Amino acid sequence: MALIVQKYGGTSVGNPERIKNVARRVARASAAGDQIVVVVSAMSGETNRLIGLAKEIQATPDARELDVVVSTGEQVTIGLLCMALIEQGVKARSYTGAQVRILTDSSFTKARILKIDEDRMRKDLDEGHVIVVAGFQGVDDLGNITTLGRGGSDTTGVALAAALHADECQIYTDVDGVYTTDPRIVPEARKLDRITFEEMLEMASLGSKILQIRSVEFAGKYKVRLRVLSSFEEGGEGTLITFEEDIKMEQPIISGIAFNRDEAKLTVLGVPDRPGIAYQILGPIADANIDVDMIIQNVSHDGLTDFSFTVNRNEYDRTVKILEDVKTHAAAREIRGDRSMAKVSVVGVGMRSHVGIASKMFRTLAEEGINIQMISTSEIKISVAIDEKYLELAVRVLHKAFGLDQVGG
Amino acid sequence: MALIVQKYGGTSVGNPERIKNVARRVARASAAGDQIVVVVSAMSGETNRLIGLAKEIQATPDARELDVVVSTGEQVTIGLLCMALIEQGVKARSYTGAQVRILTDSSFTKARILKIDEDRMRKDLDEGHVIVVAGFQGVDDLGNITTLGRGGSDTTGVALAAALHADECQIYTDVDGVYTTDPRIVPEARKLDRITFEEMLEMASLGSKILQIRSVEFAGKYKVRLRVLSSFEEGGEGTLITFEEDIKMEQPIISGIAFNRDEAKLTVLGVPDRPGIAYQILGPIADANIDVDMIIQNVSHDGLTDFSFTVNRNEYDRTVKILEDVKTHAAAREIRGDRSMAKVSVVGVGMRSHVGIASKMFRTLAEEGINIQMISTSEIKISVAIDEKYLELAVRVLHKAFGLDQVGG
Repeated sequence: MALIVQKYGGTSVGNPERIKNVARRVARASAAGDQIVVVVSAMSGETNRLIGLAKEIQATPDARELDVVVSTGEQVTIGLLCMALIEQGVKARSYTGAQVRILTDSSFTKARILKIDEDRMRKDLDEGHVIVVAGFQGVDDLGNITTLGRGGSDTTGVALAAALHADECQIYTDVDGVYTTDPRIVPEARKLDRITFEEMLEMASLGSKILQIRSVEFAGKYKVRLRVLSSFEEGGEGTLITFEEDIKMEQPIISGIAFNRDEAKLTVLGVPDRPGIAYQILGPIADANIDVDMIIQNVSHDGLTDFSFTVNRNEYDRTVKILEDVKTHAAAREIRGDRSMAKVSVVGVGMRSHVGIASKMFRTLAEEGINIQMISTSEIKISVAIDEKYLELAVRVLHKAFGLDQVGG
Repeated sequence: MALIVQKYGGTSVGNPERIKNVARRVARASAAGDQIVVVVSAMSGETNRLIGLAKEIQATPDARELDVVVSTGEQVTIGLLCMALIEQGVKARSYTGAQVRILTDSSFTKARILKIDEDRMRKDLDEGHVIVVAGFQGVDDLGNITTLGRGGSDTTGVALAAALHADECQIYTDVDGVYTTDPRIVPEARKLDRITFEEMLEMASLGSKILQIRSVEFAGKYKVRLRVLSSFEEGGEGTLITFEEDIKMEQPIISGIAFNRDEAKLTVLGVPDRPGIAYQILGPIADANIDVDMIIQNVSHDGLTDFSFTVNRNEYDRTVKILEDVKTHAAAREIRGDRSMAKVSVVGVGMRSHVGIASKMFRTLAEEGINIQMISTSEIKISVAIDEKYLELAVRVLHKAFGLDQVGG
């Protein structure tokens, strides 16, 4: 008898019919003899509806009260799913985050899980109940309702799996697994049977938005076996997210091509190359809560250097405004910007032990006349910033060049 | 400094604009120096929407899970109202029933309040916070979410007022007080400045649906000063619901004319007049959870008697079906029914010390040719069942006959 945590996202529980479908899937797993804990999101559209109501009242809603309002979305789903299970003859019981209890810190709208009481759930499971838990929410030590921030239901699933020492945490979503790249761009993209946590982290943060990145970190930290599956297809094995030590020798060098479309590049030209200059430029950006992604500092000439970085395109205008101030203080010559950038990354743990990946990537892009504007690397990925108009072309040629369209390639 | 509990119903908080209006009213009361606890219902339509979702999944939704789903309605309102208060510069904090905590028994969908912890609220009030509590809901001693049943937000308001020894519990609704009768039927109907609890109970149970009856019982039991006010008009004093001992000498004999439209009458003819016959007839009706209202047993002739009673018109068909069985067992001659009945009542504590009220009522109806089919009396009311088509006429002539259209009449 295995203990399985299943997490279903908003699309999977988007209406009563879909909730009944999820119940059928859960009922089968339960009938097969496994103990099942289900984590659900709010029905699709519901969270946005609630935030919309809040914003009609307060342009920037009070964070504590916003969590009170928004957490009702998942609470509705747990009740409805339990009804569907009971209707199908399955013993089921719902829990809000506060009822479990999922103890978090008091950072309303972006709380972090501190501790999960497993006693009550364990008792219910041993009595043969399926447990349905509201994702995305918890409670602080004063009894205030908190939420984990967008996508936090994945984190709830992984955290429950860790607390209960579950055999597997299954994330049901609208795709049937992790692909070598986006099939909408490369029809030959293949579903991966396995991917390592490190690769998944790079894929997720680079724009393959299947799993919320914090949940992957969490799963890696607590050694939770994680699997991504489709909630709309039957019988698929999805993609298992494994630990590197489990990987067999024949693991391909490159696992996938990730990309991110909404990048913008900013360059500060001709700043004095002295200690602290990077902080002088990026400090005010960080203070404004703008995430900086790639960062490059040129070699200096005559004591002056150029400084480039990328931000999300939505933040472009705010960033330019901040840099206008910085320009004066840092005695920079000029600010330049480009809001139509994209980032393409080649990801794979295999590149640790293989040379020539970078050169192959650069040659492939050069052959198509795609200019590389920035480069950044980590142990298991190489990213380049390019003009957005070449994005699809770049993804396609790289996917082919690294043999990702061939099984075992 | 007074401590006031204010309760706002679903219409009063039906959309963001109305929630802001409620916030303005609360803010004024708070600025005047009073400590304020606000109880709110779900936004109008929301509870029905949630029940509708549940019924799409289960024809008879599981009671525990239905409470989980339905209780979100009030939870959304408390968060939104707190945002509106904070936006207006008022310190405010929301509480669900579980957070307060309002301890109830475990009768899901119709729980009864057992105990209210006032410590946390008291602390917040002393720190200058307005407290906004979700009506209609509580939590049992296992931590399960419960609801008090329809209209239960009034009960929450009164229970909080009792627990906090509030100076007054104000029920804001869409009418500006309790009237001598329904102004839609009698345009001359007057708003009463005061009414006793006993009269209010008779008025409420007889169809003047301003206050939920359980909340009035509760207020009477715990001596909570209750006031009904309009949430849409400013400056009104509403109707104060008082204890009989507070009533001044000049209190009118009759306070109002109550009525109920949806009655149905059933008569069991020719049953043997022996001990236990009433139970034999009404027992199966009660077992089927059908409320019986007026009951009349005729004087017997030749050892046989007739037995009549009224039920809500919705229950007519079920009741007839049950009586068909009863007919055989009780050896009755015949079952007769009439589904178009109405009940009209004259209510007033003054009738305790005045004779002639009944005869005046009967004469007034007789003068209009209205046939009285059943009569029942209590210490402070006389009710008659009549053909529904005469209802408006009966209410109008009785209202006039008892001088209710005249101030101090």
